[in-house]
Amino acid sequence: MKTLVALCGSDSDDVHLSSVMLQTAEQVGAGIASRGAILVCGGRGGVMEAACRGAKNRQGVTLGLLPESKQEANQFVDLPVPTGLGMRRNLLVVSAADVVIAIGGRWGTLSEICYAVIFGKPVVLVVGTGGVVDELASGFLMKNSRGFLYVASSADEAVQKAFSLVKS
Amino acid sequence: MKTLVALCGSDSDDVHLSSVMLQTAEQVGAGIASRGAILVCGGRGGVMEAACRGAKNRQGVTLGLLPESKQEANQFVDLPVPTGLGMRRNLLVVSAADVVIAIGGRWGTLSEICYAVIFGKPVVLVVGTGGVVDELASGFLMKNSRGFLYVASSADEAVQKAFSLVKS
Amino acid sequence: MKTLVALCGSDSDDVHLSSVMLQTAEQVGAGIASRGAILVCGGRGGVMEAACRGAKNRQGVTLGLLPESKQEANQFVDLPVPTGLGMRRNLLVVSAADVVIAIGGRWGTLSEICYAVIFGKPVVLVVGTGGVVDELASGFLMKNSRGFLYVASSADEAVQKAFSLVKS
Amino acid sequence: MKTLVALCGSDSDDVHLSSVMLQTAEQVGAGIASRGAILVCGGRGGVMEAACRGAKNRQGVTLGLLPESKQEANQFVDLPVPTGLGMRRNLLVVSAADVVIAIGGRWGTLSEICYAVIFGKPVVLVVGTGGVVDELASGFLMKNSRGFLYVASSADEAVQKAFSLVKS
Repeated sequence: MKTLVALCGSDSDDVHLSSVMLQTAEQVGAGIASRGAILVCGGRGGVMEAACRGAKNRQGVTLGLLPESKQEANQFVDLPVPTGLGMRRNLLVVSAADVVIAIGGRWGTLSEICYAVIFGKPVVLVVGTGGVVDELASGFLMKNSRGFLYVASSADEAVQKAFSLVKS
Repeated sequence: MKTLVALCGSDSDDVHLSSVMLQTAEQVGAGIASRGAILVCGGRGGVMEAACRGAKNRQGVTLGLLPESKQEANQFVDLPVPTGLGMRRNLLVVSAADVVIAIGGRWGTLSEICYAVIFGKPVVLVVGTGGVVDELASGFLMKNSRGFLYVASSADEAVQKAFSLVKS
Repeated sequence: MKTLVALCGSDSDDVHLSSVMLQTAEQVGAGIASRGAILVCGGRGGVMEAACRGAKNRQGVTLGLLPESKQEANQFVDLPVPTGLGMRRNLLVVSAADVVIAIGGRWGTLSEICYAVIFGKPVVLVVGTGGVVDELASGFLMKNSRGFLYVASSADEAVQKAFSLVKS
Repeated sequence: MKTLVALCGSDSDDVHLSSVMLQTAEQVGAGIASRGAILVCGGRGGVMEAACRGAKNRQGVTLGLLPESKQEANQFVDLPVPTGLGMRRNLLVVSAADVVIAIGGRWGTLSEICYAVIFGKPVVLVVGTGGVVDELASGFLMKNSRGFLYVASSADEAVQKAFSLVKS
């Protein structure tokens, strides 16, 4: 059975979207695909699109759980799944995943991290990518993360960490 | 973008599960895969498993939207997506699909047909497969189906009909 | 703890909406309130509004689980709860209820009956009110209702039956 | 139409649960009821139970959106609504509310705050109550709260602020 790795991060409308976020996401997507796992995400733009592009560059499979319709999917989503749940679909991204990797992000990304911790799924925060990820990594709540939050300082380290958590 | 076809029908615990249901499901799954579309279903046993087997025999891709965990998936599911929603995940199978094909079935299948009609998605009922499908096809509610219920008398006809409805 | 009784039936846009549906709903709402229980429904017009009016005439409490916003509630809803789930909120009406009473209805009502049976909650069909209720009562699926479908031939009998099922 | 105010905070299993959390919650519940609004929450113990007790002391109405069953409700919940969604029901608490008041809290409370901001609903953080509320108020994310996060330094100020936000 395939491993599903969720990638969480901002859509293209985040004014703080940066090159480091996008490059990191693309490398994470490539790393997930290289290991034969499925990339699952919210299927839209920004960090999600970069990750999907990275996965497709390595012949990976990408699953996009979309708010309302297939038309919302970025062009690198193989399986566009409209949920009809709007932003509530974030919960499904977490439910679908064996492990979560988070990059930068805002309230939506934070909601996904919250639910991963609540559901007891490991989350790897890629530090240095800004947004809520760096705020969490710099101390906020980390002391009470129930053992589910991890940090990595690069895309490659994040992917390696994520797969080690799934296997353990 | 890939077309997603939902296949609805009974799990392995349906005491009315029959050879005609299973053979029809396998042929429908094969037909979906042959046309390059994705088979989406509830990912469990019975009719769902037969359809997934049919799709895999043709090198198709199968997406299983599962009640709670990956362990529930049948062995022919490529992408096992636990939803955490229990039987409520039926709604997601319908939301994910461009068109629905229904075989036999009980209350769960009927709930999916209801939601397809509510959401305005076409449903092809494969008549002769028993269960709620034959009851619906024999008159119940058909007169008030809002134009979304269709019938087919074989697996091949159902697949052909389904794809013609997506394209139109 | 209060008993919650769900009332399922058509919104005001059902062209088959009839006096018998509305009068029955109003009497059912009154009966639920008279017994000190809470009426829960989809909170909109038609049969739902009639039931809420009946409950308020007896100083009952009405809970409306709405598709998107409070503005959708009929004027007899005390507690308007927007769910953001659109028509998927039907599932919540069933989850919230101890017992379900169904009047007339279309696909939405049928989806609620399906989920009640799936969840193992008793449903009382008020026969003679048309719609899916009469179709179900006239034979469709009744033979395979898993023991959860009951019939009543009047509003009063339905309420009496519903409360006997909750207590048992 | 009634105003619904959500109260978010920890269940009884939070080892950081404190007198200040519980007393603040009880006062907030009383304040909500005194103004004729409905208290909506997750319906369980800890901060939720304290708020419900406060509301009932002022003859208020309390709505509890529960994970799975009515048996989970605290004794001060008037309307126990099982959702069948587990911890995912947090989203419904937010969807149901006109405004949110948060006290102390952990990942569940944070998930509710995230969704309030995502949905554009105002949140009043009662500072001095610990948990995620104090962490948020001390800077985390406040700079990017999209205008939906407010602070109050007492229960009374929080209630006053909440009602001013609903009216505006």
